[in-house]
Amino acid sequence: MRRCRGYRMTMSRDQDDFQRARRPEQKLLRQTAILEAALRLAQREGIRDISLADIASEVGMHKSALLRYFETREDIYLRLGVDAWRDWSDVLAAKLKSLATGDVQGIGEAFGTTLDDRPFLCDVFTHASLNLERNVSVENLFGFKLAAHLSIKSMAAAVRVILPDLSEGDAQEIVGAVSAVAASLRQIAHPPPAVAQVYAEHPELALGYDDFAATVARFTETIILGTRARNQI
Amino acid sequence: MRRCRGYRMTMSRDQDDFQRARRPEQKLLRQTAILEAALRLAQREGIRDISLADIASEVGMHKSALLRYFETREDIYLRLGVDAWRDWSDVLAAKLKSLATGDVQGIGEAFGTTLDDRPFLCDVFTHASLNLERNVSVENLFGFKLAAHLSIKSMAAAVRVILPDLSEGDAQEIVGAVSAVAASLRQIAHPPPAVAQVYAEHPELALGYDDFAATVARFTETIILGTRARNQI
Repeated sequence: MRRCRGYRMTMSRDQDDFQRARRPEQKLLRQTAILEAALRLAQREGIRDISLADIASEVGMHKSALLRYFETREDIYLRLGVDAWRDWSDVLAAKLKSLATGDVQGIGEAFGTTLDDRPFLCDVFTHASLNLERNVSVENLFGFKLAAHLSIKSMAAAVRVILPDLSEGDAQEIVGAVSAVAASLRQIAHPPPAVAQVYAEHPELALGYDDFAATVARFTETIILGTRARNQI
Repeated sequence: MRRCRGYRMTMSRDQDDFQRARRPEQKLLRQTAILEAALRLAQREGIRDISLADIASEVGMHKSALLRYFETREDIYLRLGVDAWRDWSDVLAAKLKSLATGDVQGIGEAFGTTLDDRPFLCDVFTHASLNLERNVSVENLFGFKLAAHLSIKSMAAAVRVILPDLSEGDAQEIVGAVSAVAASLRQIAHPPPAVAQVYAEHPELALGYDDFAATVARFTETIILGTRARNQI
Protein backbone atom coordinates (compact mmCIF):
# COMPACT_ATOMS: atom_id res chain seq x y z
CA MET A 1 0.00 0.00 0.00
CA ARG A 2 1.14 3.52 -0.74
CA ARG A 3 1.75 5.79 2.19
CA CYS A 4 -0.79 8.60 2.45
CA ARG A 5 0.66 12.05 2.55
CA GLY A 6 -0.57 14.84 4.81
CA TYR A 7 -3.46 17.12 3.96
CA ARG A 8 -4.72 20.61 4.72
CA MET A 9 -8.31 21.61 5.39
CA THR A 10 -8.57 24.71 3.21
CA MET A 11 -9.87 24.46 -0.36
CA SER A 12 -7.88 26.30 -2.98
CA ARG A 13 -6.77 25.70 -6.57
CA ASP A 14 -3.27 24.90 -5.30
CA GLN A 15 -2.39 21.38 -6.30
CA ASP A 16 -0.87 20.69 -2.87
CA ASP A 17 -4.27 21.04 -1.30
CA PHE A 18 -5.59 17.99 -3.09
CA GLN A 19 -3.82 15.33 -1.16
CA ARG A 20 -5.82 12.22 -0.45
CA ALA A 21 -8.80 13.15 1.71
CA ARG A 22 -9.04 10.98 4.80
CA ARG A 23 -12.27 12.17 6.33
CA PRO A 24 -15.70 11.84 4.69
CA GLU A 25 -16.37 15.58 4.70
CA GLN A 26 -13.03 16.20 3.04
CA LYS A 27 -13.75 13.60 0.39
CA LEU A 28 -17.01 15.37 -0.29
CA LEU A 29 -15.25 18.72 -0.64
CA ARG A 30 -12.87 17.20 -3.19
CA GLN A 31 -15.70 15.61 -5.12
CA THR A 32 -17.63 18.88 -5.16
CA ALA A 33 -14.61 20.80 -6.43
CA ILE A 34 -14.13 18.24 -9.24
CA LEU A 35 -17.80 18.33 -10.22
CA GLU A 36 -17.84 22.14 -10.23
CA ALA A 37 -14.74 22.28 -12.42
CA ALA A 38 -16.18 19.72 -14.87
CA LEU A 39 -19.46 21.66 -15.06
CA ARG A 40 -17.67 24.96 -15.66
CA LEU A 41 -15.70 23.44 -18.54
CA ALA A 42 -18.75 21.78 -20.09
CA GLN A 43 -20.75 25.01 -19.89
CA ARG A 44 -17.93 26.82 -21.65
CA GLU A 45 -17.03 24.26 -24.33
CA GLY A 46 -19.60 21.44 -24.32
CA ILE A 47 -19.21 17.95 -22.84
CA ARG A 48 -17.87 16.40 -26.01
CA ASP A 49 -14.61 18.37 -25.99
CA ILE A 50 -13.71 17.91 -22.31
CA SER A 51 -11.23 15.21 -21.29
CA LEU A 52 -10.40 13.90 -17.85
CA ALA A 53 -7.05 15.71 -18.16
CA ASP A 54 -8.89 19.00 -18.78
CA ILE A 55 -10.95 18.51 -15.63
CA ALA A 56 -7.86 17.59 -13.58
CA SER A 57 -6.10 20.70 -14.82
CA GLU A 58 -9.12 22.94 -14.14
CA VAL A 59 -9.43 21.70 -10.56
CA GLY A 60 -5.67 21.68 -10.00
CA MET A 61 -5.22 17.96 -9.30
CA HIS A 62 -3.25 15.19 -10.90
CA LYS A 63 -5.35 12.94 -13.13
CA SER A 64 -4.43 9.95 -11.01
CA ALA A 65 -5.62 11.73 -7.86
CA LEU A 66 -8.89 12.62 -9.52
CA LEU A 67 -9.48 8.94 -10.27
CA ARG A 68 -9.70 8.25 -6.53
CA TYR A 69 -13.00 10.14 -6.53
CA PHE A 70 -14.52 9.23 -9.88
CA GLU A 71 -14.25 6.25 -12.22
CA THR A 72 -14.01 8.14 -15.52
CA ARG A 73 -14.87 11.48 -17.13
CA GLU A 74 -18.17 9.85 -18.12
CA ASP A 75 -18.85 9.05 -14.46
CA ILE A 76 -18.27 12.73 -13.57
CA TYR A 77 -20.72 13.94 -16.22
CA LEU A 78 -23.36 11.37 -15.30
CA ARG A 79 -23.17 12.52 -11.64
CA LEU A 80 -23.63 16.09 -12.84
CA GLY A 81 -26.46 14.77 -15.02
CA VAL A 82 -28.23 13.45 -11.91
CA ASP A 83 -28.27 16.95 -10.41
CA ALA A 84 -29.28 18.49 -13.74
CA TRP A 85 -32.28 16.15 -14.13
CA ARG A 86 -33.42 16.87 -10.55
CA ASP A 87 -32.99 20.62 -10.92
CA TRP A 88 -35.00 20.65 -14.17
CA SER A 89 -37.73 18.52 -12.64
CA ASP A 90 -38.04 20.79 -9.58
CA VAL A 91 -38.12 24.03 -11.58
CA LEU A 92 -40.54 22.67 -14.19
CA ALA A 93 -42.92 21.30 -11.57
CA ALA A 94 -42.89 24.68 -9.79
CA LYS A 95 -43.63 26.49 -13.07
CA LEU A 96 -46.49 24.13 -13.91
CA LYS A 97 -48.15 24.85 -10.53
CA SER A 98 -49.12 28.33 -11.70
CA LEU A 99 -51.01 27.04 -14.79
CA ALA A 100 -54.76 26.67 -15.10
CA THR A 101 -56.28 23.28 -15.85
CA GLY A 102 -56.09 22.42 -19.54
CA ASP A 103 -53.42 25.00 -20.44
CA VAL A 104 -51.54 22.96 -23.08
CA GLN A 105 -49.80 26.05 -24.44
CA GLY A 106 -48.58 26.97 -20.96
CA ILE A 107 -47.12 23.47 -20.53
CA GLY A 108 -45.35 23.79 -23.88
CA GLU A 109 -43.88 27.14 -22.88
CA ALA A 110 -42.76 25.75 -19.51
CA PHE A 111 -40.87 22.91 -21.21
CA GLY A 112 -39.43 25.24 -23.84
CA THR A 113 -38.13 27.93 -21.50
CA THR A 114 -36.81 25.58 -18.79
CA LEU A 115 -34.88 23.51 -21.37
CA ASP A 116 -33.64 26.65 -23.09
CA ASP A 117 -32.22 27.74 -19.72
CA ARG A 118 -30.40 24.39 -19.37
CA PRO A 119 -27.84 23.88 -22.13
CA PHE A 120 -25.82 21.53 -19.91
CA LEU A 121 -28.82 19.24 -19.36
CA CYS A 122 -29.52 19.17 -23.11
CA ASP A 123 -25.87 18.31 -23.64
CA VAL A 124 -26.27 15.43 -21.16
CA PHE A 125 -29.35 14.24 -23.12
CA THR A 126 -27.23 14.20 -26.29
CA HIS A 127 -24.19 12.50 -24.87
CA ALA A 128 -25.74 10.13 -22.33
CA SER A 129 -26.65 7.22 -24.60
CA LEU A 130 -23.99 8.11 -27.15
CA ASN A 131 -20.95 8.26 -24.87
CA LEU A 132 -21.43 8.76 -21.15
CA GLU A 133 -23.37 5.57 -20.46
CA ARG A 134 -20.68 3.51 -22.19
CA ASN A 135 -17.88 4.06 -19.75
CA VAL A 136 -19.15 3.77 -16.17
CA SER A 137 -19.89 0.93 -13.78
CA VAL A 138 -23.38 -0.56 -13.69
CA GLU A 139 -23.73 0.76 -10.14
CA ASN A 140 -23.15 4.41 -11.08
CA LEU A 141 -25.17 4.04 -14.26
CA PHE A 142 -28.06 2.88 -12.12
CA GLY A 143 -27.86 6.11 -10.10
CA PHE A 144 -28.20 8.17 -13.27
CA LYS A 145 -31.03 6.08 -14.71
CA LEU A 146 -32.89 6.22 -11.41
CA ALA A 147 -32.57 10.01 -11.20
CA ALA A 148 -33.84 10.37 -14.79
CA HIS A 149 -36.73 8.01 -14.07
CA LEU A 150 -37.77 9.77 -10.85
CA SER A 151 -37.50 13.18 -12.51
CA ILE A 152 -39.69 12.06 -15.42
CA LYS A 153 -42.22 10.60 -12.99
CA SER A 154 -42.32 13.79 -10.97
CA MET A 155 -42.71 16.02 -14.05
CA ALA A 156 -45.37 13.69 -15.45
CA ALA A 157 -47.30 13.98 -12.18
CA ALA A 158 -47.10 17.78 -12.41
CA VAL A 159 -48.36 17.67 -16.02
CA ARG A 160 -51.30 15.49 -14.96
CA VAL A 161 -52.42 18.11 -12.43
CA ILE A 162 -52.98 20.46 -15.41
CA LEU A 163 -54.21 17.73 -17.78
CA PRO A 164 -56.05 15.20 -15.62
CA ASP A 165 -57.29 13.31 -18.71
CA LEU A 166 -53.79 11.95 -19.38
CA SER A 167 -52.86 8.57 -17.90
CA GLU A 168 -49.62 8.24 -15.91
CA GLY A 169 -48.10 6.27 -18.79
CA ASP A 170 -49.13 8.89 -21.35
CA ALA A 171 -47.71 11.73 -19.27
CA GLN A 172 -44.40 9.92 -18.74
CA GLU A 173 -44.17 9.16 -22.43
CA ILE A 174 -44.72 12.84 -23.26
CA VAL A 175 -41.97 13.99 -20.87
CA GLY A 176 -39.64 11.26 -22.18
CA ALA A 177 -40.31 12.21 -25.80
CA VAL A 178 -39.72 15.92 -25.15
CA SER A 179 -36.37 15.22 -23.49
CA ALA A 180 -35.34 12.83 -26.29
CA VAL A 181 -36.25 15.42 -28.91
CA ALA A 182 -34.66 18.34 -27.06
CA ALA A 183 -31.29 16.64 -27.58
CA SER A 184 -31.67 16.66 -31.37
CA LEU A 185 -33.34 20.08 -31.53
CA ARG A 186 -30.65 21.78 -29.51
CA GLN A 187 -27.96 20.49 -31.88
CA ILE A 188 -30.02 21.70 -34.85
CA ALA A 189 -30.76 25.10 -33.28
CA HIS A 190 -27.06 25.70 -32.53
CA PRO A 191 -25.35 24.61 -35.75
CA PRO A 192 -21.59 24.67 -36.25
CA PRO A 193 -20.26 27.63 -38.32
CA ALA A 194 -20.21 25.82 -41.70
CA VAL A 195 -23.86 24.77 -41.30
CA ALA A 196 -24.86 28.28 -40.27
CA GLN A 197 -23.19 29.55 -43.45
CA VAL A 198 -25.11 27.06 -45.64
CA TYR A 199 -28.37 28.14 -43.98
CA ALA A 200 -27.52 31.82 -44.44
CA GLU A 201 -26.87 31.29 -48.15
CA HIS A 202 -29.77 28.89 -48.67
CA PRO A 203 -32.48 29.69 -46.11
CA GLU A 204 -34.80 27.13 -47.74
CA LEU A 205 -32.53 24.34 -46.40
CA ALA A 206 -32.93 25.36 -42.75
CA LEU A 207 -35.57 23.41 -40.87
CA GLY A 208 -36.85 26.54 -39.16
CA TYR A 209 -35.82 25.23 -35.74
CA ASP A 210 -33.52 28.11 -34.87
CA ASP A 211 -35.64 29.31 -31.91
CA PHE A 212 -35.02 26.41 -29.55
CA ALA A 213 -37.47 27.43 -26.79
CA ALA A 214 -40.28 28.02 -29.29
CA THR A 215 -39.56 24.77 -31.14
CA VAL A 216 -39.59 22.70 -27.94
CA ALA A 217 -42.81 24.45 -26.84
CA ARG A 218 -44.49 23.72 -30.18
CA PHE A 219 -43.29 20.12 -30.19
CA THR A 220 -44.52 19.57 -26.61
CA GLU A 221 -47.96 20.88 -27.58
CA THR A 222 -48.08 18.67 -30.66
CA ILE A 223 -47.13 15.57 -28.66
CA ILE A 224 -49.77 16.33 -25.99
CA LEU A 225 -52.50 16.99 -28.55
CA GLY A 226 -51.50 13.88 -30.52
CA THR A 227 -51.56 11.68 -27.41
CA ARG A 228 -55.02 12.96 -26.53
CA ALA A 229 -56.25 12.48 -30.09
CA ARG A 230 -55.01 8.89 -30.14
CA ASN A 231 -56.85 8.13 -26.93
CA GLN A 232 -60.06 9.32 -28.58
CA ILE A 233 -59.74 7.01 -31.60
CA MET B 1 4.63 18.35 -58.59
CA ARG B 2 4.95 14.70 -57.73
CA ARG B 3 5.31 12.28 -60.63
CA CYS B 4 2.24 10.10 -61.12
CA ARG B 5 2.86 6.40 -61.10
CA GLY B 6 1.20 3.90 -63.47
CA TYR B 7 -2.18 2.38 -62.84
CA ARG B 8 -4.18 -0.70 -63.70
CA MET B 9 -7.83 -0.82 -64.61
CA THR B 10 -8.94 -3.78 -62.48
CA MET B 11 -10.37 -3.19 -59.00
CA SER B 12 -8.94 -5.36 -56.26
CA ARG B 13 -7.94 -4.89 -52.61
CA ASP B 14 -4.29 -4.90 -53.61
CA GLN B 15 -2.73 -1.62 -52.58
CA ASP B 16 -0.86 -1.34 -55.89
CA ASP B 17 -4.14 -0.99 -57.70
CA PHE B 18 -4.87 2.32 -56.05
CA GLN B 19 -2.39 4.51 -57.80
CA ARG B 20 -3.59 7.97 -58.67
CA ALA B 21 -6.50 7.71 -61.05
CA ARG B 22 -6.03 9.81 -64.18
CA ARG B 23 -9.28 9.33 -65.97
CA PRO B 24 -12.67 10.42 -64.64
CA GLU B 25 -14.12 6.89 -64.73
CA GLN B 26 -11.15 5.61 -62.77
CA LYS B 27 -11.53 8.35 -60.22
CA LEU B 28 -15.15 7.32 -59.82
CA LEU B 29 -14.16 3.68 -59.31
CA ARG B 30 -11.73 4.69 -56.58
CA GLN B 31 -14.34 6.88 -54.89
CA THR B 32 -16.91 4.11 -55.03
CA ALA B 33 -14.48 1.61 -53.51
CA ILE B 34 -13.72 4.04 -50.66
CA LEU B 35 -17.40 4.73 -50.01
CA GLU B 36 -18.23 1.02 -50.03
CA ALA B 37 -15.43 0.25 -47.58
CA ALA B 38 -16.53 3.09 -45.25
CA LEU B 39 -20.12 1.88 -45.37
CA ARG B 40 -19.12 -1.72 -44.62
CA LEU B 41 -17.16 -0.60 -41.58
CA ALA B 42 -19.92 1.69 -40.30
CA GLN B 43 -22.51 -1.06 -40.68
CA ARG B 44 -20.30 -3.40 -38.69
CA GLU B 45 -19.15 -1.05 -35.93
CA GLY B 46 -21.05 2.24 -36.14
CA ILE B 47 -19.83 5.55 -37.57
CA ARG B 48 -18.48 6.83 -34.26
CA ASP B 49 -15.72 4.23 -34.02
CA ILE B 50 -14.42 4.45 -37.59
CA SER B 51 -11.35 6.56 -38.37
CA LEU B 52 -9.94 7.62 -41.72
CA ALA B 53 -7.09 5.15 -41.11
CA ASP B 54 -9.63 2.32 -40.69
CA ILE B 55 -11.24 3.20 -44.01
CA ALA B 56 -7.87 3.44 -45.76
CA SER B 57 -6.89 0.05 -44.39
CA GLU B 58 -10.23 -1.54 -45.37
CA VAL B 59 -9.98 -0.29 -48.95
CA GLY B 60 -6.27 -1.07 -49.14
CA MET B 61 -4.98 2.48 -49.78
CA HIS B 62 -2.64 4.80 -48.00
CA LYS B 63 -4.43 7.45 -45.93
CA SER B 64 -2.70 10.16 -47.96
CA ALA B 65 -3.95 8.61 -51.23
CA LEU B 66 -7.47 8.45 -49.86
CA LEU B 67 -7.34 12.18 -49.15
CA ARG B 68 -7.08 12.82 -52.92
CA TYR B 69 -10.68 11.68 -53.20
CA PHE B 70 -12.27 12.96 -50.00
CA GLU B 71 -11.60 15.84 -47.62
CA THR B 72 -12.05 13.99 -44.32
CA ARG B 73 -13.74 10.92 -42.82
CA GLU B 74 -16.70 13.21 -42.11
CA ASP B 75 -16.86 14.07 -45.82
CA ILE B 76 -16.99 10.34 -46.68
CA TYR B 77 -19.84 9.71 -44.27
CA LEU B 78 -21.81 12.77 -45.41
CA ARG B 79 -21.52 11.57 -49.05
CA LEU B 80 -22.84 8.17 -47.93
CA GLY B 81 -25.49 10.09 -46.00
CA VAL B 82 -26.67 11.72 -49.25
CA ASP B 83 -27.31 8.27 -50.76
CA ALA B 84 -28.90 7.01 -47.55
CA TRP B 85 -31.38 9.93 -47.43
CA ARG B 86 -32.32 9.41 -51.10
CA ASP B 87 -32.72 5.67 -50.72
CA TRP B 88 -34.97 6.10 -47.67
CA SER B 89 -37.03 8.73 -49.43
CA ASP B 90 -37.55 6.52 -52.52
CA VAL B 91 -38.48 3.40 -50.57
CA LEU B 92 -40.78 5.26 -48.18
CA ALA B 93 -42.59 7.07 -50.99
CA ALA B 94 -43.10 3.73 -52.81
CA LYS B 95 -44.49 2.17 -49.62
CA LEU B 96 -46.87 5.07 -49.01
CA LYS B 97 -48.31 4.68 -52.52
CA SER B 98 -50.09 1.49 -51.49
CA LEU B 99 -51.95 3.16 -48.60
CA ALA B 100 -55.57 4.32 -48.62
CA THR B 101 -56.41 7.97 -47.98
CA GLY B 102 -56.39 8.80 -44.27
CA ASP B 103 -54.40 5.73 -43.16
CA VAL B 104 -52.38 7.35 -40.35
CA GLN B 105 -51.46 3.99 -38.85
CA GLY B 106 -50.13 2.81 -42.22
CA ILE B 107 -47.95 5.91 -42.48
CA GLY B 108 -46.60 5.28 -38.97
CA GLU B 109 -45.76 1.69 -39.87
CA ALA B 110 -44.07 2.76 -43.11
CA PHE B 111 -41.81 5.18 -41.23
CA GLY B 112 -41.13 2.62 -38.48
CA THR B 113 -40.20 -0.30 -40.75
CA THR B 114 -38.17 1.69 -43.28
CA LEU B 115 -36.11 3.35 -40.53
CA ASP B 116 -35.71 0.03 -38.72
CA ASP B 117 -34.24 -1.36 -41.95
CA ARG B 118 -31.75 1.55 -42.10
CA PRO B 119 -29.40 1.53 -39.11
CA PHE B 120 -26.75 3.40 -41.12
CA LEU B 121 -29.13 6.26 -41.93
CA CYS B 122 -30.15 6.52 -38.26
CA ASP B 123 -26.45 6.59 -37.39
CA VAL B 124 -26.05 9.47 -39.88
CA PHE B 125 -28.96 11.30 -38.20
CA THR B 126 -27.20 10.92 -34.84
CA HIS B 127 -23.74 11.93 -35.97
CA ALA B 128 -24.52 14.56 -38.61
CA SER B 129 -25.01 17.60 -36.40
CA LEU B 130 -22.84 16.21 -33.63
CA ASN B 131 -19.70 15.42 -35.61
CA LEU B 132 -19.93 14.98 -39.37
CA GLU B 133 -21.09 18.48 -40.23
CA ARG B 134 -18.21 19.97 -38.23
CA ASN B 135 -15.37 18.83 -40.39
CA VAL B 136 -16.22 19.34 -44.08
CA SER B 137 -16.12 22.24 -46.51
CA VAL B 138 -19.19 24.42 -46.90
CA GLU B 139 -19.50 23.14 -50.48
CA ASN B 140 -19.77 19.47 -49.52
CA LEU B 141 -21.95 20.29 -46.54
CA PHE B 142 -24.33 22.02 -48.92
CA GLY B 143 -24.63 18.78 -50.95
CA PHE B 144 -25.67 16.87 -47.84
CA LYS B 145 -28.11 19.51 -46.64
CA LEU B 146 -29.66 19.73 -50.10
CA ALA B 147 -30.12 15.95 -50.31
CA ALA B 148 -31.74 15.91 -46.86
CA HIS B 149 -34.00 18.81 -47.82
CA LEU B 150 -35.11 17.28 -51.13
CA SER B 151 -35.70 13.90 -49.48
CA ILE B 152 -37.85 15.47 -46.77
CA LYS B 153 -39.81 17.41 -49.42
CA SER B 154 -40.40 14.28 -51.47
CA MET B 155 -41.51 12.21 -48.46
CA ALA B 156 -43.74 15.08 -47.28
CA ALA B 157 -45.40 15.16 -50.72
CA ALA B 158 -46.01 11.39 -50.51
CA VAL B 159 -47.53 11.80 -47.03
CA ARG B 160 -49.85 14.53 -48.34
CA VAL B 161 -51.26 12.18 -50.96
CA ILE B 162 -52.55 10.01 -48.08
CA LEU B 163 -53.40 12.97 -45.80
CA PRO B 164 -54.48 15.82 -48.09
CA ASP B 165 -55.59 17.95 -45.12
CA LEU B 166 -51.94 18.56 -44.13
CA SER B 167 -50.20 21.64 -45.48
CA GLU B 168 -46.81 21.28 -47.17
CA GLY B 169 -45.16 22.93 -44.14
CA ASP B 170 -46.95 20.60 -41.70
CA ALA B 171 -45.97 17.50 -43.68
CA GLN B 172 -42.33 18.58 -43.88
CA GLU B 173 -42.28 19.33 -40.18
CA ILE B 174 -43.65 15.85 -39.44
CA VAL B 175 -40.99 14.13 -41.57
CA GLY B 176 -38.28 16.32 -40.03
CA ALA B 177 -39.47 15.57 -36.49
CA VAL B 178 -39.60 11.82 -37.13
CA SER B 179 -36.05 11.77 -38.47
CA ALA B 180 -34.79 13.92 -35.56
CA VAL B 181 -36.47 11.61 -33.07
CA ALA B 182 -35.35 8.42 -34.81
CA ALA B 183 -31.77 9.38 -33.96
CA SER B 184 -32.49 9.48 -30.21
CA LEU B 185 -34.83 6.50 -30.24
CA ARG B 186 -32.38 4.24 -32.01
CA GLN B 187 -29.71 4.96 -29.39
CA ILE B 188 -32.22 4.24 -26.63
CA ALA B 189 -33.49 1.05 -28.30
CA HIS B 190 -29.97 -0.31 -28.72
CA PRO B 191 -28.36 0.43 -25.35
CA PRO B 192 -24.75 -0.42 -24.52
CA PRO B 193 -24.25 -3.56 -22.35
CA ALA B 194 -24.14 -1.77 -18.97
CA VAL B 195 -27.43 0.01 -19.71
CA ALA B 196 -29.05 -3.24 -20.85
CA GLN B 197 -27.99 -4.78 -17.55
CA VAL B 198 -29.53 -1.94 -15.52
CA TYR B 199 -32.79 -2.32 -17.48
CA ALA B 200 -32.77 -6.10 -16.99
CA GLU B 201 -32.37 -5.68 -13.23
CA HIS B 202 -34.74 -2.71 -12.95
CA PRO B 203 -37.32 -2.96 -15.75
CA GLU B 204 -39.19 0.05 -14.31
CA LEU B 205 -36.27 2.28 -15.41
CA ALA B 206 -36.54 1.32 -19.09
CA LEU B 207 -38.54 3.77 -21.16
CA GLY B 208 -40.29 0.94 -23.04
CA TYR B 209 -38.70 2.00 -26.31
CA ASP B 210 -36.96 -1.32 -27.01
CA ASP B 211 -39.01 -2.08 -30.15
CA PHE B 212 -37.60 0.62 -32.41
CA ALA B 213 -39.95 0.11 -35.41
CA ALA B 214 -43.04 0.13 -33.17
CA THR B 215 -41.83 3.18 -31.24
CA VAL B 216 -41.13 5.18 -34.41
CA ALA B 217 -44.53 4.14 -35.80
CA ARG B 218 -46.31 5.20 -32.64
CA PHE B 219 -44.40 8.47 -32.47
CA THR B 220 -45.17 9.25 -36.14
CA GLU B 221 -48.88 8.70 -35.53
CA THR B 222 -48.81 10.92 -32.43
CA ILE B 223 -47.07 13.71 -34.32
CA ILE B 224 -49.54 13.50 -37.21
CA LEU B 225 -52.59 13.46 -34.93
CA GLY B 226 -51.14 16.30 -32.85
CA THR B 227 -50.45 18.43 -35.92
CA ARG B 228 -54.00 17.88 -37.13
CA ALA B 229 -55.43 18.65 -33.70
CA ARG B 230 -53.48 21.90 -33.49
CA ASN B 231 -54.83 22.97 -36.86
CA GLN B 232 -58.34 22.50 -35.53
CA ILE B 233 -57.85 24.71 -32.47
